[in-house]
Amino acid sequence: MAGMSKRDRQAALMQLLQEAPFVTDEELANQFGVSIQTIRLDRLALGIPEVRERIKAVAETKQAELRSLEGTEVIGQIIELNLNERAISILDIEPVHVFAKTQIVRGHHLFAQANSLAVAVIDADVVLTRTAKIRFVRPGRLGERLVCKAVVTSNQTERAHVEVTTRVGEDIVFSGAFTVVKMRLETVVGGREA
Amino acid sequence: MAGMSKRDRQAALMQLLQEAPFVTDEELANQFGVSIQTIRLDRLALGIPEVRERIKAVAETKQAELRSLEGTEVIGQIIELNLNERAISILDIEPVHVFAKTQIVRGHHLFAQANSLAVAVIDADVVLTRTAKIRFVRPGRLGERLVCKAVVTSNQTERAHVEVTTRVGEDIVFSGAFTVVKMRLETVVGGREA
Repeated sequence: MAGMSKRDRQAALMQLLQEAPFVTDEELANQFGVSIQTIRLDRLALGIPEVRERIKAVAETKQAELRSLEGTEVIGQIIELNLNERAISILDIEPVHVFAKTQIVRGHHLFAQANSLAVAVIDADVVLTRTAKIRFVRPGRLGERLVCKAVVTSNQTERAHVEVTTRVGEDIVFSGAFTVVKMRLETVVGGREA
Repeated sequence: MAGMSKRDRQAALMQLLQEAPFVTDEELANQFGVSIQTIRLDRLALGIPEVRERIKAVAETKQAELRSLEGTEVIGQIIELNLNERAISILDIEPVHVFAKTQIVRGHHLFAQANSLAVAVIDADVVLTRTAKIRFVRPGRLGERLVCKAVVTSNQTERAHVEVTTRVGEDIVFSGAFTVVKMRLETVVGGREA
């Protein structure tokens, strides 16, 4: 798409970001065959905030819809949420998430993103994880973006089953099958549970 | 054991703490049938630091023996470590670890303690978790002490299997079966891996 006029490129950019609002400047630059700086100037001209701000804005509205967790208790930012059906969250791998020696993301951060999304997607006051079968498929690295998707595959009165897959781009990084149990707040805070 | 003379109690206390150095003042008070304050005065008289300091002192020497992780990368404090055999760590549940609504420890902290111990117990430069089957048996609560034990059940050239159990007192809180893979640092840092 290099060689487009500036007006055409900005129109295409606007349309693309409406369909895929979380594409980074770097990915846009590759796609349009221009520099990242050009994309930044295009966004400025079009009044489109940077990707981090776009994600944050969506996450704030989605977090207000959560039932089982406080918004700040979700690890990552929720960008899609249909309770009892599916949810998606994003986590950018920062220095605090990686091993010093290898710059590979630590397993428990991948687990935390997936586990908190498996709980968040359920429409109940209190949701606790009971079991999980998880697999770390390939290491996530510093600077990569983890896109985590949770799908509720069965949902009964007291428990639900949630399949979670985390990707970097097309690559699967992590997958997990979670069984979660739903509880009434009184039974849990009272100190007794199943 | 209430009604012992102070001298007898202090001698018994000293012996007990040599065998079980991580018993809390509260547990000691229950055991000897005296107040926590009495135990504190006994410790002062005997020059025994509080349990938090005793754990820290042991953890510092154990962490120096780690190979796959930096000492600060272990979640919890390692109090026993026999590489390729077994390890034990302790994590006290603090406000930062629990759900706001229920004061129950969040699953990913239990996972992080277990997963990092499963990696720490292996004697290799780079160890990554490949799969885990985990079970949250009963909720851990604010103020409780999580004692996590990892046992290496099979150990081959490229991978190992580690069984992890976390208890509060006698109760099992969490259990997990981890498969970890061992790698050479060059292959991982070079950006390729199996």
